[in-house]
Formats: sequence, C-alpha cells, structure tokens
Amino acid sequence: MNVLAEPSARAKRFRRVLIANRGEIAVRIIRACRDLGIETVQVYSDADRDSLAVRLADRAVCIGPPRSSESYLNARFIVSAALVHGVDAIHPGYGFLSENAGFAELCEKEGVVFIGPSARVISLMGDKAMARRMAEEAGVPTTPGSRGTVESPTQAREIAREIGYPVLLKAAAGGGGRGMRVVHDPADLDTQFGDASREAKAAFGDGSIYVEKFLTRVRHIEIQILSDGETVLHLGERDCSAQRRNQKLLEESPSPALTEDMRAQIGDAAVRLCRHVGYRSAGTIECILDDASGRFYFMEMNTRVQVEHPVTECVTGIDIVKEQIRIAQGEPLRIAQADVRIHGHAIECRINAEDAARNFAPCPGTVREFHAPGGPGVRVDSHLFSGYRIPPYYDSLVAKLVVWGASREEAIARMRRALGEMRVEGVTTTIPFHLSLLDDPHFARGEIHTRFVEERLLETK
Amino acid sequence: MNVLAEPSARAKRFRRVLIANRGEIAVRIIRACRDLGIETVQVYSDADRDSLAVRLADRAVCIGPPRSSESYLNARFIVSAALVHGVDAIHPGYGFLSENAGFAELCEKEGVVFIGPSARVISLMGDKAMARRMAEEAGVPTTPGSRGTVESPTQAREIAREIGYPVLLKAAAGGGGRGMRVVHDPADLDTQFGDASREAKAAFGDGSIYVEKFLTRVRHIEIQILSDGETVLHLGERDCSAQRRNQKLLEESPSPALTEDMRAQIGDAAVRLCRHVGYRSAGTIECILDDASGRFYFMEMNTRVQVEHPVTECVTGIDIVKEQIRIAQGEPLRIAQADVRIHGHAIECRINAEDAARNFAPCPGTVREFHAPGGPGVRVDSHLFSGYRIPPYYDSLVAKLVVWGASREEAIARMRRALGEMRVEGVTTTIPFHLSLLDDPHFARGEIHTRFVEERLLETK
Repeated sequence: MNVLAEPSARAKRFRRVLIANRGEIAVRIIRACRDLGIETVQVYSDADRDSLAVRLADRAVCIGPPRSSESYLNARFIVSAALVHGVDAIHPGYGFLSENAGFAELCEKEGVVFIGPSARVISLMGDKAMARRMAEEAGVPTTPGSRGTVESPTQAREIAREIGYPVLLKAAAGGGGRGMRVVHDPADLDTQFGDASREAKAAFGDGSIYVEKFLTRVRHIEIQILSDGETVLHLGERDCSAQRRNQKLLEESPSPALTEDMRAQIGDAAVRLCRHVGYRSAGTIECILDDASGRFYFMEMNTRVQVEHPVTECVTGIDIVKEQIRIAQGEPLRIAQADVRIHGHAIECRINAEDAARNFAPCPGTVREFHAPGGPGVRVDSHLFSGYRIPPYYDSLVAKLVVWGASREEAIARMRRALGEMRVEGVTTTIPFHLSLLDDPHFARGEIHTRFVEERLLETK
Repeated sequence: MNVLAEPSARAKRFRRVLIANRGEIAVRIIRACRDLGIETVQVYSDADRDSLAVRLADRAVCIGPPRSSESYLNARFIVSAALVHGVDAIHPGYGFLSENAGFAELCEKEGVVFIGPSARVISLMGDKAMARRMAEEAGVPTTPGSRGTVESPTQAREIAREIGYPVLLKAAAGGGGRGMRVVHDPADLDTQFGDASREAKAAFGDGSIYVEKFLTRVRHIEIQILSDGETVLHLGERDCSAQRRNQKLLEESPSPALTEDMRAQIGDAAVRLCRHVGYRSAGTIECILDDASGRFYFMEMNTRVQVEHPVTECVTGIDIVKEQIRIAQGEPLRIAQADVRIHGHAIECRINAEDAARNFAPCPGTVREFHAPGGPGVRVDSHLFSGYRIPPYYDSLVAKLVVWGASREEAIARMRRALGEMRVEGVTTTIPFHLSLLDDPHFARGEIHTRFVEERLLETK
C-alpha cells in the first residue's frame, strides 16, 4: 500500500475556534487558544450550562440535552453551530467525535478545519487490523498474530497454534475492551470467537476479529508524535502502566523502564509509522513493552490529543495543543528532533469523582469547595470550581494533577504533597487511591505493569 | 579584610522545622519541607489563626497578638516555641527577622539552626556601606561614590563634586527608601544631608550616611546565588525593573537586556563577592544595570530568599528553598555551575490586595471566592482560599502568579491568560494593573527601567 503524505494547507491564522468537547479538555483547549490569541466558541449540553469552559470561552452555544448522543455526539448540530458562529476550525478534544472519520469529513465538506488528521487517516488507523498492517508495512514490530482479520474460528485456531496460547481475540472496529476475549485453552476458542464477534457486531456494527498473542506482565508505553506532514517528531514516551480494567489511572514521563537507546528505537518506529500513513497533527502510538525481553510491539494509534499529554509538555516544554492548532493552521513545525530534550520527570494523577473503595463507582454531586494545590512543579488541569455540580452523564475525570520534578523521586514527593493540599469537598474522589499507589514500594521503584494495580493494590484490600 | 569561608556543619537531616513567617512564603516553606519529608511547626499571630499555613503545617503555635512587633518580630518567643517543639531549625522566610543578625545569633546560641547565612555575614552585608566595601574588595563594580560612610556634609560635597550630580545620600543601616535623599543641586546638599541623617537615626538608630552617584534610566538586575560554603553557584539573573516607589511589581528571568556574555560577567562578579565574604546559603546580589553603557554596579546583597525566587526556579528547574534547607543541613550542593541551564522564560506578577486606581491603597477584607488559574506553564504561590479574611496588619501581597513559556512572548501571553482566569472575589487586587502593564508596547519589547511604571503607566492616567 502506498500512502502519500497529505499536502499541508497554506498557513492561515485561525480567528475563531469551536470547542466540540467539555470538562477539563475544553478548558485546556480554551487556554491554548487564548495563548495564541484565538477567540473561542464553546458548545455545551443543558447539563454543562454552568461549566467553567462556558464561563471562560468568548462565546457559548447550547447544542442539546445532557445525553451525549443528542449533544456532544451530534455532528450536524456542532457543524451548524460552527457555521453560524463563523469559526475557522473545530477542536474535538478526546473522546466524543475526536476519532470519528465521518465528523472530520463533514467538517472538511463544510469548509471548517478539523483540528486533527484527515478523515482518511482517522479511518485507516481506526480500523485496528488495518493499523496493525500499516505498522507491519512500516517495519514496526507488532505482537505475533494474524495479518489483518481472520475469516473463521478455524483460521484463528491455526494462528493460535503457531503463536502459542494465551491469545487475544480482538474486534477490528473495537475499543474500550468490547469485542475482546482472552483465550487460554484451544477448547474454548470456538465459543469465545463467536461471543467476541457477536459483541463486536452489536457494539460497532462490524463483527470482524483478529488474533494476537496475549502478553502478560507488560508495560503500556506510548509515544507522542507531532507532524506537520513534512517534519515528524516524537516527544519521547509516556508510561501508562498504572491501569485498572484498561483505564489509565496515573501516567509518567520518562518511563522508568526505558534506556536512551530503547527510547530512540521506539521513537524512530513511531515516526516511521506516521510517515508511512502520511500523518499530520498531534497523535500517539501506543505500544506494549515486554520488560523481560526489552522488546516492544505496536498496539494502536490514537489520532487525537490524549488525556495524559501534559506529562510530555512538562518534560519537553512543548505545548502540544498549541502545536496541534498551529499545524491545523498549515504552519510548519519550528522544532527539530534535536531540539526535543527530556528534562526531569513528570507524573499525572487522574482525579476522578469515584469511590475506589466501592469498586470505583462514580460519585457525581456538588463540589462545596475546590482548592487547588500550588507551588513549585505543580500544574492543575481541571474544570472544577467551588459550587460546581458534577453532572452524572459524562466520564468522572474532574482534575488532572500534574507535577514536575528534577528527578522521579522529587516528582513523587511533590505529587504526594500536592494530593495532600488538594481539597474537593462534597464529593468522593480517587485522591486517597492515588496516595496509596504512590506509597507502594514497587511503584516507588518503578516496577509496575498493566495488571499491577489490580493484582497488588486492589485485590489485597 | 580577610574573611574565611565558614566551615560547613556536618550533614544532619532536619526532622522538624519551625517557620517564623506568614502568608505565601510560609506556605512555600511548608511545601519545601513536605517535599523533603520534614515536619513543620507554623507560628502565628492571633490575626493568622485561620491562615492556610496554619492549616497545612503539622503543628501550629500562637506567638502573640496581630502586631508584628509582638509576634513575628518577637525573637525570644519564636526561639522559645522552637525549643518547646523540639525543632532542628528555623526558616525565617523574607522580611520580619530574616535579616536580623541578632535573631540568627540567638538561634545559634540556643542550638537551633538558622536557615540562612551566619549572623556575622548577615550583619556584614546588612551594613550597606560595608557591603559596598566588600564588593570593591572583591573587584565587583560599585556606583561611583564614597568608600564607606562620610563624616560630614563637607566630605559628601567633595565626593559629589568628583562624581557629579545628581547624587544619592543613603543610610548605611537603611532599607525601604528611608534615610535616602536625591540631591540635584549642591546648594541643597547640607539640608538634605541633615534630613537623611536624622531620618536614618530615627528609623534605624544609626545616622551614618554614604554617597553614591544617582543613575536614572537603569534596570534592577539581581543574581540568585546558592552556596554551600565550598561551591558557589549563580542561577542567572532576574530583571526586577518594573517597580513603583522601589517596590517590585513584576519580575522576570532571563532579563531581556542581558547577553550571554553579560550574564556570565555579572554572575561571576556575584560569585566572587559571595566567596569573598564566606557566604553560605541562598542569597541575592542586587545590581543596577545601565542599559546605555551596558555597565553594571553592585547595589546591595539580600541574605535571604527573595519574594521573586520562583522565576529562577521555573527557568532552572532548581528548587531554591529546598536547596537552602539542604545547605543548612550541612549537605554539599549536588549541582555544578555547568549544570545550571536557563530554559525558556518566566514572569512573576505580585498580586496585591491594593487598589492601583487609589494610589495602591491596601484593601484588606474577606475573599468570598478564590479561584486559581491553571493549565500549562502556570504556577500559583498563594495563601488565599475561599472565605479567607486578609488581615490589615501585614503587607498586601496575596498571590504570586508565575508563568513559564518557551519564549518571553509565550510567557507574556500565558500571564495575560492566567490573570484573566484568576478570581479573587470580595477584595480589590492589582490584577487590572498587571494586565495594563503587560499590554504596554514598551514592556512587550522589554524596554523598561526602574522609573518606567511611574513615568509611563501611572502618571499618564
């Protein structure tokens, strides 16, 4: 497959940008726009009328009722609002419509710049089996498994025999663990294949399945990419191994597991893949790192800004959201790979309105008092304020607490201190969970894997 | 004069530190202690019972009524509290007892470490005429003027004739502009000398006067020093030219006026002076920079942490308060001059509870709601919280808003954005003043001097 790089549009400064998201990422995008001197139009559902993003934006437009499907996922309404308010571009944030190729296409058709890669690339990398094939073509290691999707349980069984059990059956159109099964025993393969395919069909309208070797005791390592279509840079990695049920809880950069050499190797592979598919925007290549062998494998690509992008900003000094907007304006990157230096260590804790003691059940409600921590090395990305009512309709992330330290030790000490200073009165949050994670001696030594939190911190309680 | 370096005490980790200060700097010191795993004892006056520092510290002790002279300046009480609570050391912050040699001596005598230089060095550099002499001995340029104090108006007149008018008459024991007079005309010298000397005698108990050339259109440049008694480092400069009546309003690092060469030159001079007097701790060498000639002159040394230390922390990544505590513990610096790199640009705005429109009159009162700005490159050092009553007894600094940017332009844009996000409801603050300062085209070009704010921003209103 021969994919050419997309032509970079002629640079034209945006005057006004619409933010097609909510919560902390909407606030983050408003901040980037303000830093660039760009006006903002914030769309909101009825549930977000009194949100911080609405307060901070230059303009705000209601686009529907609380349910996402009728507001934040309503592509037509959002593009209409964009046209009515004469915006030059739409920033989709993460989640919602950010990886929806149809939305990007609609924007393109209506003459509004979609701040992200082209619809073609979103759709290419959104197909997990296709993305895997792209990686293989670019010479990026993938976990042993099928080349593309498999036709039948029989074909899956043949591949499983070759690569050895356990194997993962994954939905090509999947995400969030749906249409995914771990198979330990050949006897279970047929049933599991049927289940996974039916689940995938129901969830994504596409029952295609592919097979991968299931690796345990691995790290989740991801590479931040910036590309203007000509220059493709990597900004080092993030270690996102602290997860619960595939949901990231804490992320850091650099990874305690990577050597300079491995960093360059994974970084180069990520750049190669982006070049191969003609990627243009900010993006992330997610990999599995097998600590034991030191080998890494491509997992998937996220064609949008990640929740955890601030840790990379803290160690590189590069404002990823600003760069993403500049690229969408058609500007060439003014940084070279040699200018990208990793300085110190950054950690992000995702503070959720959840009760870790009750299986991380969401705890929406009214924040009586919000007091952000401060001082050296502390960054807070949050849409909270005193008196804010957390609506029950959306995800439970209420703040990203990010710290920087000259060393990992300094960063951990600061995170502990900052968590202790933070006040979110009136709702239960995951602050106590994060304090216990930071106190764990394995975590302190950087010895974690993607099952670490569940096996060590949650099962033992 | 031959001054030997002080012997560095044997390293001994502090278990508990008493904070002999209040407001934002008390919070700053608690944060540094917490990052180092040191317990904190916060002293407070009756007016500060409900302060953030009291809330954050491990212990808190009331030391008297609101008046500083009966609480934060009561050296005996503070040392008694230190002994009762078994602390290893006292951090004096800035102001109050921080440059009081008698207090440092009392601490030494009672076996409590004073976190700062020795009483001898405080007293040496506290005498402005003596400090000037030390600078001359160390080969650091001083403004043309008298060598030490002058005996009489006649002697002052002779020196003034030599160096040319206008001249400054300054109190050797002085500070804060008291006992200071600008003389433009020889005919006024006698009267002004008498006035300055009487004012100095009344304010400091010492009427000694020295003479300096009065330079206009100059910058205030200061060099941050860290010294463990062996290694003496400079952490680059801060440009504090945005002042009103000798009070700093906004500080930045690096200075838009310095070249790499000048930075190295001023830095080396500052290091030389510190070596000469055997300085051990964090400290600051304040200089005048004459933009026209590119020459700099030693002004004075501050033997404590400065209000504006965070801008240096932001561009170097070095935690000055932690280093200051470590030095006091007897630890050697683990940084070499070559490791000190200035990265990007930082600006601090001092947010005061003052009404700039009414001649910066203090506006104490209750903060109905405090909402701190956040996001990339923003640091907030503040003791405010929603519901906090700002007492009328102390200085009016309520928050230091510090931003970092990859360039000065990015830092200015972020500061503007952050000031716009900040909410201090219920009291008048200098936020609008800072916004107008940032909007000034001269400021944007970095073309300012110590009279700039008064001449350009305040007189024209």
